[in-house]
Amino acid sequence: MSLAGPINDELAAWDRDCLLHPTTHTANHARGDVPGRIVTGGKGVHIEDRDGNRFLDAFAALYCVNVGYGRTEIADAMNDQAQKLAYFHAFAGHGNEPAITLARLIMDRAPEHMARVYFGLSGSDANETNVKLAWHYNILRGKPEKRKIISRWRAYHGSGIVSGSMTGLKAYHARFHLPLEGFLHAATPHYLRRDDATLSEAAFTDRLIADLEAMMLSEGPETIAAFIGEPVMGTGGILPPPEGYWGRVQELLDRYDILLISDEVVCGFGRTGSMFGATHYGLKPDFMTIAKGLTSAYAPLSGSVISQRVFDVLMQGSDDFGALAHGWTYSAHPVSCAAGIATLNLVDELGLLGNASSTGPYLLQRLRDAVGSHPNVAEVRGVGLMAAVEFMEDPGTFKWFEPPMSMSGKISAAMLRRGVIARPMPEGDIIGFAPPLCITPQEVDQVVEALQGAVQEVLG
Amino acid sequence: MSLAGPINDELAAWDRDCLLHPTTHTANHARGDVPGRIVTGGKGVHIEDRDGNRFLDAFAALYCVNVGYGRTEIADAMNDQAQKLAYFHAFAGHGNEPAITLARLIMDRAPEHMARVYFGLSGSDANETNVKLAWHYNILRGKPEKRKIISRWRAYHGSGIVSGSMTGLKAYHARFHLPLEGFLHAATPHYLRRDDATLSEAAFTDRLIADLEAMMLSEGPETIAAFIGEPVMGTGGILPPPEGYWGRVQELLDRYDILLISDEVVCGFGRTGSMFGATHYGLKPDFMTIAKGLTSAYAPLSGSVISQRVFDVLMQGSDDFGALAHGWTYSAHPVSCAAGIATLNLVDELGLLGNASSTGPYLLQRLRDAVGSHPNVAEVRGVGLMAAVEFMEDPGTFKWFEPPMSMSGKISAAMLRRGVIARPMPEGDIIGFAPPLCITPQEVDQVVEALQGAVQEVLG
Ligand SMILES: Cc1ncc(COP(=O)(O)O)c(C=O)c1O
Ligand SMILES: Cc1ncc(COP(=O)(O)O)c(C=O)c1O
Repeated sequence: MSLAGPINDELAAWDRDCLLHPTTHTANHARGDVPGRIVTGGKGVHIEDRDGNRFLDAFAALYCVNVGYGRTEIADAMNDQAQKLAYFHAFAGHGNEPAITLARLIMDRAPEHMARVYFGLSGSDANETNVKLAWHYNILRGKPEKRKIISRWRAYHGSGIVSGSMTGLKAYHARFHLPLEGFLHAATPHYLRRDDATLSEAAFTDRLIADLEAMMLSEGPETIAAFIGEPVMGTGGILPPPEGYWGRVQELLDRYDILLISDEVVCGFGRTGSMFGATHYGLKPDFMTIAKGLTSAYAPLSGSVISQRVFDVLMQGSDDFGALAHGWTYSAHPVSCAAGIATLNLVDELGLLGNASSTGPYLLQRLRDAVGSHPNVAEVRGVGLMAAVEFMEDPGTFKWFEPPMSMSGKISAAMLRRGVIARPMPEGDIIGFAPPLCITPQEVDQVVEALQGAVQEVLG
Repeated sequence: MSLAGPINDELAAWDRDCLLHPTTHTANHARGDVPGRIVTGGKGVHIEDRDGNRFLDAFAALYCVNVGYGRTEIADAMNDQAQKLAYFHAFAGHGNEPAITLARLIMDRAPEHMARVYFGLSGSDANETNVKLAWHYNILRGKPEKRKIISRWRAYHGSGIVSGSMTGLKAYHARFHLPLEGFLHAATPHYLRRDDATLSEAAFTDRLIADLEAMMLSEGPETIAAFIGEPVMGTGGILPPPEGYWGRVQELLDRYDILLISDEVVCGFGRTGSMFGATHYGLKPDFMTIAKGLTSAYAPLSGSVISQRVFDVLMQGSDDFGALAHGWTYSAHPVSCAAGIATLNLVDELGLLGNASSTGPYLLQRLRDAVGSHPNVAEVRGVGLMAAVEFMEDPGTFKWFEPPMSMSGKISAAMLRRGVIARPMPEGDIIGFAPPLCITPQEVDQVVEALQGAVQEVLG
């Protein structure tokens, strides 16, 4: 398949002249050095651009269009609500039917010990809400000094000032004064990249836990409010945790009275094959951050799901001091919540958790079969419908290609020429896969063939 | 008009059991002490709730539904886009037609020296983007120590950790560890509340400017990145600036190489009668924060409009260091941008700037006529279609009612019984008005009559 060239018309010029794109090379875009792709439609796992190209999107945009493109049920539900009442605020106890109904659907799916959901717009703002509420909780309990947040290197929790402080990727810190003080990072739980090649996976977990406990003790547990983690690290490279990791982390948190923020922005609503990453790994979070899969990106919506023990303290706080002073104008937006209801219903109706549980392992197996024994492949890994292939010049000696990340860009470009979108991921030569949860085995085959062809083309 | 009681059915119970509302008394809501109002529809300046009540909303929800309720043109535009392509991301130069077109419409309306718009979801996140970019700009210029932000007491810039640090209302700081270090607050530019009653308005402005310059000098201008201000303070009480204030502030900022963030979340797109507060007061911002009026709240959307001089540095930064690492998944959301296009077109078609310029002064005059000489009225103020009435027990001696803010709650409740929504505002007994910009003089009369009746009922 050959790609049509960009149409150099007014729209492309307006784009260059007016729009600052998220996470884009500003100058290249403004100069038109890298022509932007204007996406115009989609159906199932496919998107189409304005130049007539069609791609199989094996990353569901940014692992968010979980139910797939072109679901008119969701568009219709949004329209019904927008025609009735596009917006009224939810401050001071005001509400709207879709927000209340969606809150109920979420709480029906959340672990038993969770109590309420607060709606935001983005994963980043929901993580910020969680930090703000974790601080508030400790202040109300008379422990104001308990406020540091522990995250992990290679985490992604957003690109705001607070959410970006919790992110553990260097590009998101450099030249932004990040991380802010009081946001710490523990080691990445990625067995492949262990310092000591002789460690077993169990011994590697032991070391991670010992290091984490040492960090807690040297900082002082009485200064630490919360630990935040993606159940499966996403943007950092799609890293399923090493064996036993989460159970042991949870033990430490319980021991030192540290809250757990489970960032479910990617894992939530079926990506791992379970409803949440927390349920998949048996965690007991005090906060769950949800976004992406909640609406399959059809409308901006995020949420902070909070535990009963946190909620009890907030209740008492409002009795003592009055209303909780935290609110976005668009919290509980009716149209976004209507999209959420339609999405969660579709996830059930289409059996997407089941498909992630069955087609996910199929994807992983196919990837292993196709490239697992290639001499430049260091690892093929995944859980549910997220997977990654990591490349090195010499996996035996951990030698990376030079310059780093040059190969993943080339491989993903070669896949694009074969009609498949996969995502090069930072801090390594990594190609990530996180297709819509409705992907079929036949479509998985196309993805894997595109990768195989691309690897052969680029690496031989 | 009498209000029907709440319907104690399943929906109300789900609301209490599942939803944590923005800026609400958590415990009262959860216990059902203050029944929530579930809003179901609206048309023009009116909303309807589930219990069959109808209100004239003289605050446009949260001064955001500027074109009024029930505009099917906007809902239709959202639906057209959602049916075609609800979402694809805008990272790495990807784009979609509505985002590009809306960016063009915004830049056509923005002051000449502005260069690009970055899309977010909320006013809070756009303010955070502005701080992040102001820091980045100074780091790229080799001035990393230039990072403090000056805001003002009684400002409202959001309720995130960074945006809430810039907010200058005590309820938004207390028990949240806010403001963060490096976020300073200058004095509120509100002549009524001047410390020294003998000062003329011009002398009051002189003092504000002298105090602000003294703050800049004592902190060191080389440590200050930006000054943020709402052209007309909104949530702090609807406070038009004293004569000459903004021109003098702009002079200081120019003198000390300090960026100006004009927070246009409320003022933008016509609220003052001009397109932006910055144009109304002749400011030259480096960042304009836009939200609310941009979509009239039909869909969540905000923006950071940045100046050419900031953009030039970002361009160079990407040439030196690569992609700008800042992106929300839902930046440039196609459906939200479609709502923005339809909204800005409606603002023009309905002549809403003109209506704000003519019906705004009518509202102010009617308020003055109705309650201006009441012995408990300290001030009736406004600009365009925002106005406020401030009450004191004795305006002559600045004596407030006890407990503070008890009267504004009673007056707004009495207005609600008369079918009109107005908003009690914090840190004073203040009733605020900011109706949809399509309000007619006849509807203004109803609002003023409701206030007059309520004041008579509550204060005699
Ligand atoms: C795990 C995780 N948390 C948070 C976020 C931030 O979400 P948003 O981009 O909606 O702010 C992301 C985005 O990719 C994410 O992957
Ligand atoms: C002036 C101003 N800036 C920022 C915000 C925050 O906007 P949002 O509630 O969308 O986060 C508001 C909200 O009322 C505002 O009035």
